[in-house]
Amino acid sequence: MNPAELSPHRARALFRAGLRTPTSGYSPGYAQANLIALPREAAFDFLLFAQRNPKPCPVLDVTEPGEVSASVFDGDLRSDLPAYRVYRHGELVEERADVTDLWRDDLVAFLIGCSFTFETPLLEAGVPVRHIEAGTNVAMYRTNRECRPAGRFRGPLVVSMRPVPADRVADAVRITSRYPAVHGAPVHVGDPGALGIADLARPDYGDPVEVREGEVPVFWACGVTPQAAVAASAPEFAIGHAPGHMAVTDVKDSFYQVP
Amino acid sequence: MNPAELSPHRARALFRAGLRTPTSGYSPGYAQANLIALPREAAFDFLLFAQRNPKPCPVLDVTEPGEVSASVFDGDLRSDLPAYRVYRHGELVEERADVTDLWRDDLVAFLIGCSFTFETPLLEAGVPVRHIEAGTNVAMYRTNRECRPAGRFRGPLVVSMRPVPADRVADAVRITSRYPAVHGAPVHVGDPGALGIADLARPDYGDPVEVREGEVPVFWACGVTPQAAVAASAPEFAIGHAPGHMAVTDVKDSFYQVP
Repeated sequence: MNPAELSPHRARALFRAGLRTPTSGYSPGYAQANLIALPREAAFDFLLFAQRNPKPCPVLDVTEPGEVSASVFDGDLRSDLPAYRVYRHGELVEERADVTDLWRDDLVAFLIGCSFTFETPLLEAGVPVRHIEAGTNVAMYRTNRECRPAGRFRGPLVVSMRPVPADRVADAVRITSRYPAVHGAPVHVGDPGALGIADLARPDYGDPVEVREGEVPVFWACGVTPQAAVAASAPEFAIGHAPGHMAVTDVKDSFYQVP
Repeated sequence: MNPAELSPHRARALFRAGLRTPTSGYSPGYAQANLIALPREAAFDFLLFAQRNPKPCPVLDVTEPGEVSASVFDGDLRSDLPAYRVYRHGELVEERADVTDLWRDDLVAFLIGCSFTFETPLLEAGVPVRHIEAGTNVAMYRTNRECRPAGRFRGPLVVSMRPVPADRVADAVRITSRYPAVHGAPVHVGDPGALGIADLARPDYGDPVEVREGEVPVFWACGVTPQAAVAASAPEFAIGHAPGHMAVTDVKDSFYQVP
């Protein structure tokens, strides 16, 4: 089974059957998405939070309350991601492979663009992506930058990091800036300390990756930001994907490319 | 008093003092915005409607409930537009110059991008704008295209129309496509019948303009669309601007330009 050769439908069937793995490198050419599902009464505040923080929270799709699939995702949101995180009053209470029995009729699911989407064009341009080479999850960090609050929602910007050879940083910026719906251009290049990241070897989510001599750590806004906002803002209930374990959508990544 | 020489602050002071006029041509270089204010309980459905229909409803700013100014508008939303429309259960009940006494603590105000914003770059490129030359309001039409619904909100796409000389249509497309936050590229060029517009001389909002020999009617998505959705969807209460009588913001139009 080669992840690069799986259709979104087939990848989702494997995840539904129990395969638990980060999805970077799966179904290349198709967009991937972050999930955050919230009770209807918290949904306006969150949608406004997303509208005010479009770099970390680009909204690809929003379900009607209780729906379990979405226009960009022809699967079951409760079972077809590899893993989920469950929050009660902002506390992470559980990580599990299926949330069918926890889903509620009042849940509104938000699908948020994911930077895994632009890894295919990076690879096609010869820009290496270390965590795909290594077969690990991407490294993600909470930063010292606060998002713009909205109603009850506030929280820090979360970023993903990829080491990029210094002579390819400009290419990485140019390529990813063409995908604003999946976080777009980097928010920061080099100098992790300026983002409040003390140690690159200890990410807050995902796995560490080596930054080699001649490489620069490049930081993109990350769709785990909504879960950091859930932790900071403590809505009564929330379900997110496990970081790096994304919703593989049916939409081609080229759909989200701008000229 | 030359409208082209007024700062946003000064223009708003004139409107507050009672000047009632379409704002096309006012404070050139500054973005203008459509207003729709809705009760908090309808706000999620509307924000989702806007998210699903970004061409007619590009969101520039959203207030917290009860607020009367906004980050892009350093004035009083209840008095500093030239005219307002008041809706009860979807019925237009009143048009008036001030809504201070009608504003409610539960109102959430949405500021939506307006195509008047890109008229300055059109004029600077030598593309004529007939309604500015004529000193009238822009012509706007309800079309036969339905927006994508969201919760209780549904309704037709509304468009504004500008006649453009055939040899400048490409320039008009190129220039306006650089301003996606204020409706961007045209949604339709020529053939009003295909949009369900029977008679260009009878706009649904604003004033008719002459389409001369050698000119093509060019249609842009219009921020009056939310008011057509209010009429179709009948929320309990809503306040909008009078079409063409916009909120003059403090944000430079260049802020909304993309490369």
